[in-house]
Amino acid sequence: MGCVAQPPPRPRIDLIAARTVQPSLHDAATRCSSVTGIGHGVGVSATPPKARPARIVIHDLQPRVDEGTHPPKLPLGDTLTVSATILRDGHETVRAVLRHRRSGADWTEHEMVGTEGTDRWSAAITPDGLGISEFQVEAWLDRFGSWHHEMERRIAGGQEDLGSELLEGAAIVAAAKLAGDDRARAKQAVATMRGSAQQADRLAAAFDADLAAAMRRSSARPERSRSAIGRVEVDPVRATFGTWYELFPRSWGGFDGIARQLPAFADLGVDVLYLPPIHPIGVRHRKGPNNTLSAGPGDPGSPWAIGGAAGGHDAIHPDLGSPAQFARLVGEARKVGIDIALDLALQCSPDHPWLTEHPEWFSHRPDGTLKYAENPPKKYQDIYNLDFDSPDWRGLWQALLDVVMHWVRQGVRIFRVDNPHTKPFGFWEWLIGAVRSTHPDVIFLAEAFTRPAVMFELAKVGFNQSYTYFTWRTSRQELTDYVTELASPAMAGVFRPNFFTNTPDILHAYLQHGGPPAFHARLVLAATLSPSYGIYSGFEHFENVPVHEGSEEYVDSEKYQPKQRRLDGPLLGVYRRLNIARRMHRALQRIAPVRFLGTANDQLIAYARGTGHDAVICVVNLDPHLDQIGLVDVHGDLDLPGSFAVSDVLSDQVFQWQVGGNYVALGPGDAHVLAILR
Amino acid sequence: MGCVAQPPPRPRIDLIAARTVQPSLHDAATRCSSVTGIGHGVGVSATPPKARPARIVIHDLQPRVDEGTHPPKLPLGDTLTVSATILRDGHETVRAVLRHRRSGADWTEHEMVGTEGTDRWSAAITPDGLGISEFQVEAWLDRFGSWHHEMERRIAGGQEDLGSELLEGAAIVAAAKLAGDDRARAKQAVATMRGSAQQADRLAAAFDADLAAAMRRSSARPERSRSAIGRVEVDPVRATFGTWYELFPRSWGGFDGIARQLPAFADLGVDVLYLPPIHPIGVRHRKGPNNTLSAGPGDPGSPWAIGGAAGGHDAIHPDLGSPAQFARLVGEARKVGIDIALDLALQCSPDHPWLTEHPEWFSHRPDGTLKYAENPPKKYQDIYNLDFDSPDWRGLWQALLDVVMHWVRQGVRIFRVDNPHTKPFGFWEWLIGAVRSTHPDVIFLAEAFTRPAVMFELAKVGFNQSYTYFTWRTSRQELTDYVTELASPAMAGVFRPNFFTNTPDILHAYLQHGGPPAFHARLVLAATLSPSYGIYSGFEHFENVPVHEGSEEYVDSEKYQPKQRRLDGPLLGVYRRLNIARRMHRALQRIAPVRFLGTANDQLIAYARGTGHDAVICVVNLDPHLDQIGLVDVHGDLDLPGSFAVSDVLSDQVFQWQVGGNYVALGPGDAHVLAILR
Repeated sequence: MGCVAQPPPRPRIDLIAARTVQPSLHDAATRCSSVTGIGHGVGVSATPPKARPARIVIHDLQPRVDEGTHPPKLPLGDTLTVSATILRDGHETVRAVLRHRRSGADWTEHEMVGTEGTDRWSAAITPDGLGISEFQVEAWLDRFGSWHHEMERRIAGGQEDLGSELLEGAAIVAAAKLAGDDRARAKQAVATMRGSAQQADRLAAAFDADLAAAMRRSSARPERSRSAIGRVEVDPVRATFGTWYELFPRSWGGFDGIARQLPAFADLGVDVLYLPPIHPIGVRHRKGPNNTLSAGPGDPGSPWAIGGAAGGHDAIHPDLGSPAQFARLVGEARKVGIDIALDLALQCSPDHPWLTEHPEWFSHRPDGTLKYAENPPKKYQDIYNLDFDSPDWRGLWQALLDVVMHWVRQGVRIFRVDNPHTKPFGFWEWLIGAVRSTHPDVIFLAEAFTRPAVMFELAKVGFNQSYTYFTWRTSRQELTDYVTELASPAMAGVFRPNFFTNTPDILHAYLQHGGPPAFHARLVLAATLSPSYGIYSGFEHFENVPVHEGSEEYVDSEKYQPKQRRLDGPLLGVYRRLNIARRMHRALQRIAPVRFLGTANDQLIAYARGTGHDAVICVVNLDPHLDQIGLVDVHGDLDLPGSFAVSDVLSDQVFQWQVGGNYVALGPGDAHVLAILR
Repeated sequence: MGCVAQPPPRPRIDLIAARTVQPSLHDAATRCSSVTGIGHGVGVSATPPKARPARIVIHDLQPRVDEGTHPPKLPLGDTLTVSATILRDGHETVRAVLRHRRSGADWTEHEMVGTEGTDRWSAAITPDGLGISEFQVEAWLDRFGSWHHEMERRIAGGQEDLGSELLEGAAIVAAAKLAGDDRARAKQAVATMRGSAQQADRLAAAFDADLAAAMRRSSARPERSRSAIGRVEVDPVRATFGTWYELFPRSWGGFDGIARQLPAFADLGVDVLYLPPIHPIGVRHRKGPNNTLSAGPGDPGSPWAIGGAAGGHDAIHPDLGSPAQFARLVGEARKVGIDIALDLALQCSPDHPWLTEHPEWFSHRPDGTLKYAENPPKKYQDIYNLDFDSPDWRGLWQALLDVVMHWVRQGVRIFRVDNPHTKPFGFWEWLIGAVRSTHPDVIFLAEAFTRPAVMFELAKVGFNQSYTYFTWRTSRQELTDYVTELASPAMAGVFRPNFFTNTPDILHAYLQHGGPPAFHARLVLAATLSPSYGIYSGFEHFENVPVHEGSEEYVDSEKYQPKQRRLDGPLLGVYRRLNIARRMHRALQRIAPVRFLGTANDQLIAYARGTGHDAVICVVNLDPHLDQIGLVDVHGDLDLPGSFAVSDVLSDQVFQWQVGGNYVALGPGDAHVLAILR
């Protein structure tokens, strides 16, 4: 066939992965079309590899995302269980440690425990700081442990003369690398095991517990193999767990007005105050009330139409306050344990300085005009999107990072990012990584209502949490399926939900038609199902009038006109109770565990958060119009006693519940949030 | 802190994986302990990468095993569906092709189809030869398709003036890379779209179907991204599907004796005749009948105690025939469509030539004596294991490959490997790869009764099929669970089962206590649940006497004494019918699909193999003592008409069955194997 058969490429020894890697066909020096009708085309002789392949195989390291490309996430202080499959041929046993280090630190080792039937080994680490932690499994042949096991089987099987085996054992002990007392002890044991004492004495020396402990300290690790290095990104607890409240500063008297409300927000249990964009708003094509195409003289426009004479993304709208007032707000909030979250909306109004300073950062039509944002048939004439295809994409990226770092330097640690799914994944991965390289305590929330794979990709490239489909999951089955998915291990370590009950863009029909009972039900669901949840101001006042029937837009939306907001909504009493319960019960601070319970009534949803004495059992009547009754089936495997007292966080009532069926009767939209009484 | 902060390592652009790869902390030029209390320790500034990261992300390529380390398997002629997640930010659409090539050949492309909700794209390939096939997903931005979609939405949304959009479309068409008629057509379309004709005419030109077809042939692929390269190993159909019969040549008159039986075996539907080791047997420490420690003068010993004066693994036991007779057997068998499978048992008797030629290949005790094989407390004094820790491991590996290639040159294409789990995984990976590099049609069957992860690892490193836990899965639930697991996608593409009903080492209590009805049931189960199955001679005669109660060993085991075997067992009639059915029905030739059906009686197991008109519905009475009745629930989603006629392969009876419940009554161990009548 006209080609020379070459010896095949040697299998490569991947020392990190501790296995022989078959040569990729890219490696073949000569691509022969089939000489003998064979597939590989790599030649007719094969010689053994130069280096002996690792005998211990380690694979299926968990947790792992996209073959190691992206690190899963872990809240600071939480424990991560790392596991892997460790295999070796034959009957001998291995030992394994989990190596762990925060970057720049030294490796520490943690003994792993194996499950014999499955060959899965695991250990837990609790990284003590933010940022990337690395971990790696290291396994080696446990000669002495194997010898012990084999001896035990021989003795149990009735073998009498164990002289030769004792010599084998002595050789293993002699080969250990020990120091100090361990070394002396081993030397003594070797002498006895090789000596002429009675076999019983030689065996006693071999099975001495102190010798076994010393041997475990041997630094010799024969056949040592290491897995790939895994990573986990440790982020602030607030990235996983927090109570959010969204408010438009211009409706609260600007930054000073918000600052005056801080004690009240703190008392309500709010952790994060999220502000829509605080920058100057464009004048040209400004939207009027109810999204009309032209604004009147007093209309403030949409805060998302960013940029005007007073500046762009690093400037502050003059009506809201000065930079000093903003800094004061951030500082005062921090003192009462509240974070100010800003809205990062990477788009520009027609009056943004970048339009003139960097026209190359924007898309132009063939006729030369700028392209405003569209999602046909929708038009957003007050907004221009940035063009990430720009030849000066590096300048654009740098400018965007500078914007973020500007606010980070003002003390901001949380960014809610507007529509991240219309910007390249690679941009976010770089930007978030760059910010975290100096400030690993910064949190990014993705507001991406789009396809699941895209939402998950944003989480993978670094977004700490994400809006979800929660607003549209209203029935019992929908809520059960969705939360179960979110709580699954594959999701929970990567994608953190934030259950907003409503947003300036989303007023769900359930709230429109259900009125106050619907608001009550949704508040309880959000606050108890997800460790991060939020409400947008107005929710606590049961605001529920859409711009027209069938729309999810609010009438007289605050996006286009200011409101006079006060912290006095009727729902705030329940809100406060829920937030107290969330802070008291660890079970409400993580997405898992959650177990959905039978209720015998599809209008009643019930679930147990956590297990044992920290469990919180919730029952919600999803029907906003009618009373509903049911029987809540508390499973036997929730680590609860047969009978137990519970206290309802919402009403302080005490009930006696049991494993098995529990009768409930709830009014429209009402709920029980039951903590176990010790 | 005494270190200089460096700019962070640039994220690497992994062109194959089409994504930005975060720098491993190994890459950091300087490991700074935390200067500012940060995790990464990589410096305080971050600049955009030099190269723009790929905007299209491709991941989760399937099928994939161990992050690409091992190729999954595919029977020659079968179709493989390859899928991946393909994502891009924004609203524009992509196109994708699956590239495929057998090694050494050119890439061919296959258009992929996407599922919008999940962003999973897939295409199918049907490799036309044995050996490794490579595949890779390539995706790019479909500018023209995106523009069409956007235009359709604008038009549907009522936009009237589309002049600017037509200019955008014209620019896209102008940028295409076309040839011949396509090029001319495009040029004309550009002129029209940019021209002064009526808008309707310009739109007509833009939406011309021929133009769209031409544009799809453009060789310009903007934002082209490629996935990792995946591999699949195409192996012979026989590796997946075949009927095996195990026999000891010395009980059948040697090779010539077997050759005389070939027409009968062929008539019975046997595909593979598997012979325990055919090599000279050691004399010293030879086992006598029933595994006694010393053999008498006429005792032949165990065939697994390989090696004597007449040679070792590449020699033939003189009592069985000459090399010429063996070659003739192999050739005659091939003519009637039967493969001879040899037993590869990598171990030596005390008389094997290697003991003297290569003492360094064996383990020695500290007192200098050789270590015979043991699994304490069991001792195998007639066998010495090879020591893969030998300093001359390369010489040992080469010698073992030479053994296999010796038999391959004699025409052998199938090796049943004895206890592969006591030899290093890396050795098997190399040996099987070396053999397949010149003979990709060789099949290796792993006889490894061990932990699941080890059995799966052997499959991954190249064993085409494996013995299983089938013999110990006797109840309905056990069989259902086990086969469901084997048929799952993660298993089916890697681990191929061979359901032996019995082996010289395994006579299950179910057969001992159940007698002929038990044999009948187990034969039907094996032959219909697994595409590869086998019986060991004696099964068809209902041989079921153990060496003692509670043992799985045969009394007077053929391992230690010859039998007078004839092909006249009472079960052969059923055997033949089953094998005919297996050859007629594709549904029985692959492990999936299999659907277990309700029967309302745990003694009755029922399952549908395949779907639609090729389906085969089986019902087996697992009770070897009593009649059993039940109701087989045929599911509505098996693509069967509401009512259908079936013919029982075992009895030729015809029944009318239906979707829903079907009454069955079966005698002890009896079964229905129902093929759908057209």
